[in-house]
Amino acid sequence: MTPKTERWEQAAEVPLMLAAFVFLAAFAVPIIWWPGTPAQVVLVCEALVWITWVIFAVDYLVRLILSQNRLSFAKRNWFDLIVIALPVLRPLRLLRLVTLLSVVNRRASSNLRGRVGTYVGGGAILLAIVGALAVVDAERGADGANITTISDAFWWAATTMTTVGYGDRYPVTPLGRGVAVGLMVSGIAILGTVTATLASWIVERVSEAKAESDSVSRDIQLLRQELAELRAVLRKEPEPGSNEGAKPH
Amino acid sequence: MTPKTERWEQAAEVPLMLAAFVFLAAFAVPIIWWPGTPAQVVLVCEALVWITWVIFAVDYLVRLILSQNRLSFAKRNWFDLIVIALPVLRPLRLLRLVTLLSVVNRRASSNLRGRVGTYVGGGAILLAIVGALAVVDAERGADGANITTISDAFWWAATTMTTVGYGDRYPVTPLGRGVAVGLMVSGIAILGTVTATLASWIVERVSEAKAESDSVSRDIQLLRQELAELRAVLRKEPEPGSNEGAKPH
Amino acid sequence: MTPKTERWEQAAEVPLMLAAFVFLAAFAVPIIWWPGTPAQVVLVCEALVWITWVIFAVDYLVRLILSQNRLSFAKRNWFDLIVIALPVLRPLRLLRLVTLLSVVNRRASSNLRGRVGTYVGGGAILLAIVGALAVVDAERGADGANITTISDAFWWAATTMTTVGYGDRYPVTPLGRGVAVGLMVSGIAILGTVTATLASWIVERVSEAKAESDSVSRDIQLLRQELAELRAVLRKEPEPGSNEGAKPH
Amino acid sequence: MTPKTERWEQAAEVPLMLAAFVFLAAFAVPIIWWPGTPAQVVLVCEALVWITWVIFAVDYLVRLILSQNRLSFAKRNWFDLIVIALPVLRPLRLLRLVTLLSVVNRRASSNLRGRVGTYVGGGAILLAIVGALAVVDAERGADGANITTISDAFWWAATTMTTVGYGDRYPVTPLGRGVAVGLMVSGIAILGTVTATLASWIVERVSEAKAESDSVSRDIQLLRQELAELRAVLRKEPEPGSNEGAKPH
Repeated sequence: MTPKTERWEQAAEVPLMLAAFVFLAAFAVPIIWWPGTPAQVVLVCEALVWITWVIFAVDYLVRLILSQNRLSFAKRNWFDLIVIALPVLRPLRLLRLVTLLSVVNRRASSNLRGRVGTYVGGGAILLAIVGALAVVDAERGADGANITTISDAFWWAATTMTTVGYGDRYPVTPLGRGVAVGLMVSGIAILGTVTATLASWIVERVSEAKAESDSVSRDIQLLRQELAELRAVLRKEPEPGSNEGAKPH
Repeated sequence: MTPKTERWEQAAEVPLMLAAFVFLAAFAVPIIWWPGTPAQVVLVCEALVWITWVIFAVDYLVRLILSQNRLSFAKRNWFDLIVIALPVLRPLRLLRLVTLLSVVNRRASSNLRGRVGTYVGGGAILLAIVGALAVVDAERGADGANITTISDAFWWAATTMTTVGYGDRYPVTPLGRGVAVGLMVSGIAILGTVTATLASWIVERVSEAKAESDSVSRDIQLLRQELAELRAVLRKEPEPGSNEGAKPH
Repeated sequence: MTPKTERWEQAAEVPLMLAAFVFLAAFAVPIIWWPGTPAQVVLVCEALVWITWVIFAVDYLVRLILSQNRLSFAKRNWFDLIVIALPVLRPLRLLRLVTLLSVVNRRASSNLRGRVGTYVGGGAILLAIVGALAVVDAERGADGANITTISDAFWWAATTMTTVGYGDRYPVTPLGRGVAVGLMVSGIAILGTVTATLASWIVERVSEAKAESDSVSRDIQLLRQELAELRAVLRKEPEPGSNEGAKPH
Repeated sequence: MTPKTERWEQAAEVPLMLAAFVFLAAFAVPIIWWPGTPAQVVLVCEALVWITWVIFAVDYLVRLILSQNRLSFAKRNWFDLIVIALPVLRPLRLLRLVTLLSVVNRRASSNLRGRVGTYVGGGAILLAIVGALAVVDAERGADGANITTISDAFWWAATTMTTVGYGDRYPVTPLGRGVAVGLMVSGIAILGTVTATLASWIVERVSEAKAESDSVSRDIQLLRQELAELRAVLRKEPEPGSNEGAKPH
């Protein structure tokens, strides 16, 4: 990373976070305030969504220009490119909020398991909010839809991410089902991460508990003992040797 | 922890446990005995709920006063504070029962995996009871509710905590859904802990089974062999050296 | 274990297995052949169920009598006692089939992961069969029941054990729900064991793959190198020492 | 493996892959283009399905003939035999596509976790496609079926493999339910693999983070220090010995 890129990233961090929050608000307001959002509010929100899009696009372009190898930059940051290039599908726009996870990240402890926990917790809540907003937006107008209020949408997001899936609420539109698949896959990843973090904790505790009786360290103790004996042998023997060499004179 | 705090905690342990049990009973009776609980019984139960609340509050205050750094105490025990400060929402009151887990804990074996198992088992059963009571209490009066008997509530709690979620029973009120999300998250944690404990057991068994063929300990064996040879060399050589030094005479 | 107990267990193994198979068949026939099982068939099956019960009870009693410490024997084998003492509830009788798992066990490879896999596979299939039979038996007569055929019962058992839980089929009787909770808990345990076995396999492969670059074995390599140098030093030095001691003459 | 077998497998790889792709297309077209697939298209597809079957059968036979021990070959490749011997049940034919996973495999990174990830990702998507096609094919004609379009089938496959199971869509025919059980079991395996891969990653990171403070490597450091001291002792002592031997002159 060039020093310029680094300086840009530091300078852009706070504006990008703000843009992500403004974007979330501008996306959420017309969905929550429904039906009967005043036309001006809709307009302002739509404008804010596009302004934040421009901010994200500018950040991407600046980083692309500052990078030494642009092709490798584009490859490494394919996710950013998708997020910026595909703002047509409304739920996909919400992927931009993944940026918010880095706020969570910086606040996390330096401890790895603590960081994993914070990521999972923060990510799960952010995903539930985003998924609920996206689904209610996609489903509301459809025939036979049963997720039509924000409160139902949050309930549905919780039953989906935990893989409980009662089936009292479920999406019926292709867009809503796409969002659902995203939430399910996230749910599995979250379940997996919770389990894995717990497993790593238990494995560590158990292995600590039996570290003393460990065969490797016992072997090393034996080795050190042998070395000590060997040194004792060496300390004793050269002296009688030199005495014997000196005596005859 | 100051000696005073320690003495208080030891003295308060049994009364707090009793208070938790009384609280559970006083909470459960009007929910199970429904409809048509005599007014006196309801009154007595309500009184017991408040008395146990006072006991928990007193315990918290005494520990706060006895602590050396009150701010750090309040931070460390934020969960206790929430449990005491928010007795308005009825299901939240049930969080007080988390205290019961320490009974389970003291009865558990000293073995870590045994303790995890006991916690998970005891916690899961306690959560199912508490969740079932809280849901039936929240749902019973609501329109379109389908969890209206204690037996249905236990069945629903089991399908939720195992993330099976048939959907024959599901909460419809915001309060009931909140309780459900709590049970789902607990279910994931329990699933994760069961898996992690099993994983740690299998990892340990497998690593024990191949400890003999392990490369590290084989390396150490080779090392010890070399040391033994080296000692043999040392034992032999100084003697001919002293002989050679002695011969010329 | 006394030599007598050992001889008894070896002698009883095959008859107990046969009894378990006969029991499964005698339990299954009247459930599958429904409605309109001839009265004689029902009678024969009922008789066989009781005969197998007697066989299991005799085995338990003989082992109890042969054991040195009867109280500790009863404690260790509490599960056997429950299985024998509670044959009134029909689904609980099926717990006797847990004995069949030891057939699976003896056929399994000596490899731990292989054995875990065989147990999980065999146990899952046995549980599905037993659960399906028990549920259809419990539900068939009930009002509003939707698991009324053997084929529906197997389908329901599969959706329950995998925690999918569509909710197109679900038990409505207390007995059926009890069986369901048993299957759900088994499902979680199976899920956990599958994950744990995979985790242990991946952990082992990954650690093997980086064993060469491992810091411990690299340290040991360095140690061995130092030892070799040390031996070279020792081999060379005593000889010039004896030469120098010889020269002056 | 004989050199002949190896040469055959290398030569057959590309044709087999092509056959698998052609097979998938020939299987999918009449299912997707429904109702009203022209009779010729159905005929061509059916012909292609049988041609690809012949290709797989020829490959199996050649490998069987080239193998040194035919019985052990048949045992090791029992899965291939089932896939070829049972082309009567239509969904079972789709098992042939498991061959496609080896394409995924060769494209995967050499890193084990990367390869596991690629397998799981590729396998999950392939399974969802195959399961959706098989279910819609099995269910379409049945009474009371609710999975009748390709889009519903994909949605159902996603809810099944993630074990969410809303129950808005579920199979009702024995064949469809068999496919569903296959998807559920795969879902559990995928869930397990995701968790296990994450667990292995976390365990490795955590153990790396504390490698420095590790007791084993600290022990080895101490050992090396002792060796260095020992060598210093050896380097110093022979010289005073020779000096003392030289001095008297």
